[in-house]
Amino acid sequence: MKLRLTPRETKFFAMFEQMCSTLQQGAETLHELLRDHGNVAVTVQRIKDIEHQGDELTHAVIRRLNQTFITPFDREDIHKLASSIDDVLDFVNSAAERMLIYKIEAPPKAAAELSEIIVRQSKELSTAVALLESKKENVINHCVEIKRLEGEADYIARKAIGSLFEHERDPIALIKLKEIYETLETATDKAEDAANVLESVVLKSA
Amino acid sequence: MKLRLTPRETKFFAMFEQMCSTLQQGAETLHELLRDHGNVAVTVQRIKDIEHQGDELTHAVIRRLNQTFITPFDREDIHKLASSIDDVLDFVNSAAERMLIYKIEAPPKAAAELSEIIVRQSKELSTAVALLESKKENVINHCVEIKRLEGEADYIARKAIGSLFEHERDPIALIKLKEIYETLETATDKAEDAANVLESVVLKSA
Amino acid sequence: MKLRLTPRETKFFAMFEQMCSTLQQGAETLHELLRDHGNVAVTVQRIKDIEHQGDELTHAVIRRLNQTFITPFDREDIHKLASSIDDVLDFVNSAAERMLIYKIEAPPKAAAELSEIIVRQSKELSTAVALLESKKENVINHCVEIKRLEGEADYIARKAIGSLFEHERDPIALIKLKEIYETLETATDKAEDAANVLESVVLKSA
Repeated sequence: MKLRLTPRETKFFAMFEQMCSTLQQGAETLHELLRDHGNVAVTVQRIKDIEHQGDELTHAVIRRLNQTFITPFDREDIHKLASSIDDVLDFVNSAAERMLIYKIEAPPKAAAELSEIIVRQSKELSTAVALLESKKENVINHCVEIKRLEGEADYIARKAIGSLFEHERDPIALIKLKEIYETLETATDKAEDAANVLESVVLKSA
Repeated sequence: MKLRLTPRETKFFAMFEQMCSTLQQGAETLHELLRDHGNVAVTVQRIKDIEHQGDELTHAVIRRLNQTFITPFDREDIHKLASSIDDVLDFVNSAAERMLIYKIEAPPKAAAELSEIIVRQSKELSTAVALLESKKENVINHCVEIKRLEGEADYIARKAIGSLFEHERDPIALIKLKEIYETLETATDKAEDAANVLESVVLKSA
Repeated sequence: MKLRLTPRETKFFAMFEQMCSTLQQGAETLHELLRDHGNVAVTVQRIKDIEHQGDELTHAVIRRLNQTFITPFDREDIHKLASSIDDVLDFVNSAAERMLIYKIEAPPKAAAELSEIIVRQSKELSTAVALLESKKENVINHCVEIKRLEGEADYIARKAIGSLFEHERDPIALIKLKEIYETLETATDKAEDAANVLESVVLKSA
């Protein structure tokens, strides 16, 4: 019995690692878009494709969860972790889409800075998830860093929006950029949600 | 004992059917409003009344849930299903209210299209919920259709908002319509949430 | 054994009372800011400090929850209650911050009215939580009042936003105030969420 259950359990960890690596890919592509601009339509499509892969991975986790009796940690936490990683990628995709719909050619530097923070959070998430199975005690540090990065993003977004309201006289341009900043900032919030789930998984098993 | 428990369990299914039928009524009234306009104030009031009925049904489900020991499926899923059906109707009402507050006389065609999608999702939800008790295996198809419809709504909303930013020069008019589209699109997201709960209920019992 | 468990259980009630009292302090400071204006930067910083205290209390509850085997009521409800009280204070802080970032000197009366409702909800929450341990049967009345207050806030916010769209010709000023109203109204929604959790805790134990 144990032999049959162990590989099943392991599978969840591998699935989460794959989800984080897909997220990281999406975040890096968004960072590229916001830093170098280039062919917006092509890059946005690439991000959309990555987001679809992310969706499929999320559904696979949930399907497996519904079919598995013994899970490596709380069912509810598995569900929450999958949903929050999926949410980060959704907002990455959402920010990219807005670049296209709003025809923003050269976004301000703050947008690239925010997307860089999402990249850093994704890397921390990947590391944390990789440690979850066998080195639980080292997970917390990465969660703390993800939350610190969220605070940084919050600060950058708030400053950028404040400056928009100070300098941008065209209300339609203001609406567009404000929403880009807010979408990027929400992505970092969702990464913090994922970190909170990871933290609680580790604390429960302590 | 069993005799006493069975009718209780059945009750939840009947309650969900009633919730879906109330939602459908609300969605159809909103569609009427966005398609034919007519007396906005009167129709918005009708939707508000329907939303109040929906609220009462939701509270009744939650009250019963708290008093019932054995439930026909996961307590948490019953709670989530009730909340997400309630959320769809909340956003239907929210869209209607904005028509009145923002004094929008003749909304663009995309708004009517989005509300038609909500009607179709509500019908699918009704069917899915009606099958839940005795024909579980047929529920999934309707969930898939609800999610496909959400993708369609997403596409319509995104195109309509893109076109707003392209053609609408009055920023205040733009803010109003953008919010109407977003509210309608969020209603379809909530219907997708309900479909996800239904799917997971069926998969767990498979 | 019982002797060791009882004090632990009691601790959760005391922690929730402390959370509510911190929330009340934050809400009162916001009300002061929106009613009397005064030194915006200083008052906003005070609210931010209170919000940090609230964050620490929330983390303390969750940490304790993860280390406690027997809890005075459903683990999930403890988690939800802590999160929703924390959310109210987050939105209080968010509204305060926007006053600073958007350089709003004298906000309209409706903003002060909304913040007064948050103060009243916070007081009701404090009372409800204080009754939770030994006078459960009296909790419901306070929950009903919190929900009634949310309806009142909803009405005030809707009217204020309607009047903005009618009278404010400067779209950037409109965006700023609309967001202040919406943030305040969301704070009252979160207080309603907390009331719903309390209600469900009481009903379950009836």
